[in-house]
Amino acid sequence: MGSIELPQRCLIFLGEVTDPSMAKTAFGLRDWAPQRCVGEYSLPGCTVSTGLPRLTPTQARERGADGFIIGVANFGGILAESWIPILLEALGAGLDVVSGMHSRLTDHAQLSAAAQRYGRKLIDVRKPAAGIPVASGRKRTGKRLLTVGTDCALGKKYTALAIARALQARGLPATFRGTGQTGIMIAGAGIPIDAVVADFVAGAAELLTPDAAPEHWDVVEGQGSLFHPSYAGVSLGLLHGTQPDVIVVCHELGRTHLVDVPEYPVPSLFETIDLNLRLARRTNPQARCAGISLNTAALSPSEASNVLEEHSSRLRLPVADPMRGGPAFERLVQACIAQ
Amino acid sequence: MGSIELPQRCLIFLGEVTDPSMAKTAFGLRDWAPQRCVGEYSLPGCTVSTGLPRLTPTQARERGADGFIIGVANFGGILAESWIPILLEALGAGLDVVSGMHSRLTDHAQLSAAAQRYGRKLIDVRKPAAGIPVASGRKRTGKRLLTVGTDCALGKKYTALAIARALQARGLPATFRGTGQTGIMIAGAGIPIDAVVADFVAGAAELLTPDAAPEHWDVVEGQGSLFHPSYAGVSLGLLHGTQPDVIVVCHELGRTHLVDVPEYPVPSLFETIDLNLRLARRTNPQARCAGISLNTAALSPSEASNVLEEHSSRLRLPVADPMRGGPAFERLVQACIAQ
Repeated sequence: MGSIELPQRCLIFLGEVTDPSMAKTAFGLRDWAPQRCVGEYSLPGCTVSTGLPRLTPTQARERGADGFIIGVANFGGILAESWIPILLEALGAGLDVVSGMHSRLTDHAQLSAAAQRYGRKLIDVRKPAAGIPVASGRKRTGKRLLTVGTDCALGKKYTALAIARALQARGLPATFRGTGQTGIMIAGAGIPIDAVVADFVAGAAELLTPDAAPEHWDVVEGQGSLFHPSYAGVSLGLLHGTQPDVIVVCHELGRTHLVDVPEYPVPSLFETIDLNLRLARRTNPQARCAGISLNTAALSPSEASNVLEEHSSRLRLPVADPMRGGPAFERLVQACIAQ
Repeated sequence: MGSIELPQRCLIFLGEVTDPSMAKTAFGLRDWAPQRCVGEYSLPGCTVSTGLPRLTPTQARERGADGFIIGVANFGGILAESWIPILLEALGAGLDVVSGMHSRLTDHAQLSAAAQRYGRKLIDVRKPAAGIPVASGRKRTGKRLLTVGTDCALGKKYTALAIARALQARGLPATFRGTGQTGIMIAGAGIPIDAVVADFVAGAAELLTPDAAPEHWDVVEGQGSLFHPSYAGVSLGLLHGTQPDVIVVCHELGRTHLVDVPEYPVPSLFETIDLNLRLARRTNPQARCAGISLNTAALSPSEASNVLEEHSSRLRLPVADPMRGGPAFERLVQACIAQ
C-alpha cells in the first residue's frame, strides 16, 4: 500500500522524439537502471536512441520484459493519439504500460478496456497509490540520506542516484528512493511526493523509508527547496518524514535566481544548510550536513576542480560534482557514512 | 475557480447528537455567522440545540434559506443512513446540502440522483475545488494576518475569527478566510488547505487571499504547526502563500506535548515566533509578530489575567485570550494594525 510498484524489466518507448532533452527518462533508465532495460522502441520520425537493442513488444516479452515505459516527455504532458496503437500492442503482448505524463493512461477508454481484456496494468507514475498514512514522527531503524537544494531542478535526483551507487560500490546496503516520476521509474518503485495530498506528505516520506537494518542506507531523492515560494511545503514534509541522518545540499554554480520565480534570489549555501538542519532536527536531532553537490556543468574540468576546492575550503565541507566523480566525490561519499 | 462557495443562508442540521462537543460546527456557525443561520433541524433523540428556531427544510426555504448544513461531527466521519431521508427532503425543498465529513455526499448514489433531479448542489467542504494554481510568489496588494501555532487544535481558527470581528468593529475592512472545514462553513467560502495536493498548497493560500484594497485585511485561519512532524509542510505552504504582514502565535497554556505525537515537546513561544518569522520573510520581508493568543480556558479570570501579564512582560509583546477579550485583547488587536 502507498508505494507505486513498477514492472521490473522494461521496453523503453521513445515516441517520435527528435530532441534528446525530451527523452531524459529514457536516458535516466539506461544510465541508472540498465538491468531493468530490455530494449527500446520508437515510431517513424524518431531521431533519438538510447543505444539499447530495438525490439517489438512481443520480442521484448520473449526476452523477459514485463513492462513498456513511456520514456519521453511530451509538450503539455498529453498522451499522443499516434501512440495508442503501439500501447495497445504492448498490452496485447503481455506488458504493463507505465507513464509519467500528466494525462492519465487510465482515463483513456480504449487503453483501459484493452488493459482489462489482457489482464495488464496501466500505471500512472504521477498518481500516488492509495493507503498513505499521516506521519507518526516515530524514529525508525536504519540510516537515511536526503538530497536538498537551494532551488528546484539542479541535480537532487542525480546526486542521490550517484551516492546510492557509490555506497553500493563500497559494499554497503543502500537503496535509492524515488520521489518524482523519473526517480520512481529508475527505482522501479516510489511515491510521487508532490502529488500527495498535503496532510500526508510527511507520512509518504515515512512510508517510503521504512524500518531497515541498522547499517542500511535509504538515499532519498529530494524535491523542491525550502526557499522556493511555490514548493517549500513539499520540501519540509519530505524532510520531516524522511528524518535524515545526513543531508547533502545540491546547488548549481552560477544560478542566482530561482526557477519560475526570478524575483527570488537563490539562498546562500550556508543559509541552506542552516535552515535544513534546523528543521530536520525536529524529527531527527542527529541530522548533519555531509557536504555539497555542486553542478559545474558550465565549467571546464580544471575550472571545476578549482571551484570545488574553493567552495570546500570556504565551507569546510566536502564539495563535489557527482557528474565528474573523482577524489572530491569520494570525500563527499566518505563524509556521508562517517560516524 | 479554486475556492469553495457555500450557500449564504442555511438551516443547520444536528442529527441525533447528544454530546455538545460533537456539534462544534453548529455552534461555530451560530456564534460567528448568525446572519447566515436561518434555523436548526434535528432528529428524534437529539438533545443538543443551538437555540435557533426549529424549522423544516420547507419552512427554512420560505424564510430565504438556500442551504442545509450538516453541523455535527460523526464518529468515523461517516454519513449516517438515518440522515438520508431528511437530506433528500432538504434537496427536494430547494436547499443545497453541505457536509464537512470524510465520506462524501457525492459518493452516495441516492443523494447524487436526487440532487440532479432537483437541480441542487451537494457540497463536500473537505474536497478542494478544481483550478488551484502553483504559487507565483508575487507580492499582492492589501494586508494579511495569519494565525500560527505551537501545535494543532489550540485556537487558531477562533483567534482569527475574533481578530477579524474586532477589526470590523473598528470600522476596518477585514475578511476572515477559512482554511478548514468549520472555518469554511463559517466564512461561507474558502479552501480546505490540508486536502489540497502538496504542490498547490502555497498556490491555494495565494488564491484565498487575492489582491485587495491597500487598507483591507485578510485574516487567515492557520493550520497545523511548523513544529508538528505530521503537518509542518501544510503550515509552511500556508505561511509562504499567505505572505502575512502580521502573524499572531497561538498557544494553549499548560500544553507540554503535541497532539497525537506525545513524544514531541511543544516548542517555546520564542522559538515559534522566530521560526515562523524566518520562514515568512522569504515571501514577505516585512512580516512581524503582533503578539500571542493564549488559550487560558483552564484558569479562573484572575489567574488568567495574571498569566497574560506575566507572559506579556516576559515576551515584550501583547498577550491575550480572545475568549476573554478585555483590554489585553484590545492591545493585541491594536498591535496587529499598528504600522
